[in-house]
Amino acid sequence: MSPSEIPASLADLLDRPLYGTLAIVGTRSDAQSSPMWFEVIDGTIRFTHTRKRAKFRALQKNPSMSLAVFDPDQQTHYVEVRGRLVQTIDDPTGAFFQRLAHRYGNANAAAPADAADRVILVMSIDRVLGQ
Amino acid sequence: MSPSEIPASLADLLDRPLYGTLAIVGTRSDAQSSPMWFEVIDGTIRFTHTRKRAKFRALQKNPSMSLAVFDPDQQTHYVEVRGRLVQTIDDPTGAFFQRLAHRYGNANAAAPADAADRVILVMSIDRVLGQ
Repeated sequence: MSPSEIPASLADLLDRPLYGTLAIVGTRSDAQSSPMWFEVIDGTIRFTHTRKRAKFRALQKNPSMSLAVFDPDQQTHYVEVRGRLVQTIDDPTGAFFQRLAHRYGNANAAAPADAADRVILVMSIDRVLGQ
Repeated sequence: MSPSEIPASLADLLDRPLYGTLAIVGTRSDAQSSPMWFEVIDGTIRFTHTRKRAKFRALQKNPSMSLAVFDPDQQTHYVEVRGRLVQTIDDPTGAFFQRLAHRYGNANAAAPADAADRVILVMSIDRVLGQ
């Protein structure tokens, strides 16, 4: 599915500053999920992360990613995006962290203390499910 | 972690009738997630499902499960439970489906049309993360 095929009925869940649950496969082939900020940019989903975390290492081994977002106002309205890590972009000043902090309501976020290790995870949008 | 070690600060997320995001590993080692009803019973998390779905087949191959639940009223309050499929119980009348439907607000749910294939997935509570 091309990014342009995100159904209109689901697009709001990716546009609004809602927390997503990002599922990945751990290094021991275990299912893992964690809450993430995200933003859709240029037909991809982007997250702020660091090179020092277990999730980063797991994604090097298995790039599969699944992002689920619920509408907090109506739990039967949700989207699952399946994709994979297609690019990792250095973010040494933490500028993308600050951009997401702003999107999620903190307009004056300082650069993160771990800025030197910060990266942008770029996830492809391969399949979109939901209702 | 034993089930009794669910931190009190996170227990409400499992008690309330909130939708969860269940992450599993697909048969092609891909991360998958989907919205699920659930209930904590006897120190395990239980889901209604059927033997006919791809998720059921995937769990036979890799029993790893991760359940994430957000508080819709406060998105920074969430829980992730890691565990695995430890038991599958036949539910040929769909009684457990009806029990969960009641928990999630439909007190008069009929037995599901696919009752003959219905099962209860029993997930262990191996680790609890969140805030």
